[in-house]
Amino acid sequence: MEFISGGVCAAKGFSANGIHCGIRKNRTKRDLSLIYSECVANVAAVYTTNLVKGAPLVVTKRHIQNGKAQAVICNSGNANTCNANGEQIAEQTCSLLAKELNIDSNDIVVASTGVIGQEMSIKPFKAGMPQLVNGLGDNSNFAEEGIMTTDTIAKSVAVSFEIDGKVCKLGGIAKGSGMIHPDMATMLVFITTDCAISSEMLNKALKSDIQSTFNMVSVDGDTSTNDMVVVLANGLAQNKEITKEGKEFDTFMCALNSVNVALCKMIAGDGEGATKLIECKVKCAKNEEIAKKVSKSVICSSLVKSAMFGSDANWGRILCAIGYSKCDVDVNKIDVKFISKGGEILVCQNGLGVEFSEELAKKVLLEREIIIDINLNDGKATATAWGCDLTYDYVKINGDYRT
Amino acid sequence: MEFISGGVCAAKGFSANGIHCGIRKNRTKRDLSLIYSECVANVAAVYTTNLVKGAPLVVTKRHIQNGKAQAVICNSGNANTCNANGEQIAEQTCSLLAKELNIDSNDIVVASTGVIGQEMSIKPFKAGMPQLVNGLGDNSNFAEEGIMTTDTIAKSVAVSFEIDGKVCKLGGIAKGSGMIHPDMATMLVFITTDCAISSEMLNKALKSDIQSTFNMVSVDGDTSTNDMVVVLANGLAQNKEITKEGKEFDTFMCALNSVNVALCKMIAGDGEGATKLIECKVKCAKNEEIAKKVSKSVICSSLVKSAMFGSDANWGRILCAIGYSKCDVDVNKIDVKFISKGGEILVCQNGLGVEFSEELAKKVLLEREIIIDINLNDGKATATAWGCDLTYDYVKINGDYRT
Repeated sequence: MEFISGGVCAAKGFSANGIHCGIRKNRTKRDLSLIYSECVANVAAVYTTNLVKGAPLVVTKRHIQNGKAQAVICNSGNANTCNANGEQIAEQTCSLLAKELNIDSNDIVVASTGVIGQEMSIKPFKAGMPQLVNGLGDNSNFAEEGIMTTDTIAKSVAVSFEIDGKVCKLGGIAKGSGMIHPDMATMLVFITTDCAISSEMLNKALKSDIQSTFNMVSVDGDTSTNDMVVVLANGLAQNKEITKEGKEFDTFMCALNSVNVALCKMIAGDGEGATKLIECKVKCAKNEEIAKKVSKSVICSSLVKSAMFGSDANWGRILCAIGYSKCDVDVNKIDVKFISKGGEILVCQNGLGVEFSEELAKKVLLEREIIIDINLNDGKATATAWGCDLTYDYVKINGDYRT
Repeated sequence: MEFISGGVCAAKGFSANGIHCGIRKNRTKRDLSLIYSECVANVAAVYTTNLVKGAPLVVTKRHIQNGKAQAVICNSGNANTCNANGEQIAEQTCSLLAKELNIDSNDIVVASTGVIGQEMSIKPFKAGMPQLVNGLGDNSNFAEEGIMTTDTIAKSVAVSFEIDGKVCKLGGIAKGSGMIHPDMATMLVFITTDCAISSEMLNKALKSDIQSTFNMVSVDGDTSTNDMVVVLANGLAQNKEITKEGKEFDTFMCALNSVNVALCKMIAGDGEGATKLIECKVKCAKNEEIAKKVSKSVICSSLVKSAMFGSDANWGRILCAIGYSKCDVDVNKIDVKFISKGGEILVCQNGLGVEFSEELAKKVLLEREIIIDINLNDGKATATAWGCDLTYDYVKINGDYRT
């Protein structure tokens, strides 16, 4: 398996586009994206568990009940959530696109991201649709831009792998930044692949993988109303369709996981206001659930996040966050290290502080990617969670988001 | 019942002091506090549920097993947590004080607050003990200062009430600020009363009251390692001792609740970096558990907190926080209002936005105390949670706490 370029257009038969259609006032920012497969694809999706759900999610669920989809349309600038006519707008969007593409409206996945509770007009969609469709091509980068909100970098990744002697490709794009604390569901991620795989196995692969990828990311502890991850598989790589577990399914899972982990790191590292990606690796836990809870508790702690911003080796806050994770761990066995390109430093052993060089600690923590390495010395399970530091800019961005 | 001055010295037979003994480098900051009762008092305490526990908590639990105590000693500047000799230091502190006061070392409650995992020396305690004891008097204010860390205001409150024809008094002091998200336990709060009440009923009163007071406060979602609330009742008001439920117990509960609610508001309003106290009132919930979870979810949301800092009426984030609280609520019935001295404004009705004056919303939200009033229109239960806004200063304070 190797990483390649091309994002959601890497896989055979997929094209994309992104334009400014007028949902946002800023005319230089693309606000409407499209991903299109030349044939109907199998589809799998997971959604936010927030009780308040964006209207587009409701419509998408209805559309892909049969496990098939051919296009994804997504706007930024307005979440189309808590709006009286939300579903109507989302359905109209699909109808407009279906007509322009000459496909079935029920084969369209629709998504929105932006402010909640702001009325949405169909006008910009109507005006922009011809341009959006006419510009379809090898434009994953335009689609990436169109779904960005407060993201500062476009997030895209693709891999190629072999199944059954055929080269398959799988690529994804993501929108991250704020309101990110997925729970049994995810942020906005669109993945395409030309690998032939049944909807059933595609669903199985996605639902299993997100438990150790997107569900282990937190930017701010807020689980969004509009999160979804969608995978389209159009089968154009012409491998024998994967319909059961086995070597081929494992290869596909491995490719999916590589793409998802890469997107997780991009999303966490580009969290609202973030200056650093924090990766918390927990090892030697009694079981996986404990490893997951402990790592997530650490990356969610506002105090740990603030210390990371200040490059302060305040490991006591890490112990504190482990302590309130409600997990059965033996505090007196815990070791903590900080690891980065700047080096590696042990700061806590058997739950107690050890003497360490503050100078080296600073050097390690001044890097842009920090690993908090926690050894529970209590078993064999491991888990990794991804987060970011808490900065002035997070407060700035969110103190005045609507204006 | 009326509010009075005097803090922990309001009740008969209690005196207090606070000095700088040298635990902190800043010589103008008091770092050691003492509360003393002229006779042995009944005592009740609740502690943090964090698995990592400060050494002083372990020692205190041992000392007050018999339900009796006569003094409370507390230092700031070092949490005495994750230290190899932590318990030894805490016991030595009690011995030194017992000798100076000529009381039993087992009748002493000991507490610490500050940095976790930093070695602690007994020397400053030894040096300061005579001065600490000699200065005992009507000095609740000195004791308040001695337990402060990043607090910007001293937190103290007292009430007087009548039981059985006798005037009783009950007063408390608190340390708040950061690492505040109590869970079945609390922050550092010391309460004194001259009301005669058995240890058993005192325990019952405290354990019941904190469920709707301190456990409903969150500054940053971090549950500290050193939290405790202690109540000393020395009986000098000479009312007939309260030994069972009934009118007298209710009167006592009411006084305790008034003091605790006042301290909660002070702690939340003076959260690290906070510029505003946020009170989230949930009413008409199906049951109390839902009311509590919803109100706490809202005040814990980083996005809601940031919006409050920016005086931005971004109610969609409130709906979002209700939605991920995992409670059985009907989203389509939710009304949301903002209320303050600046006025009252309805921003969401039946889960949908309503037109409102942005000008009035700004006026309401620019105040220092904001009520987020949520009506679930689904039953009769209510709950209130207290939090604060998320500001640049929270990040500043915690990005570089140790230095």
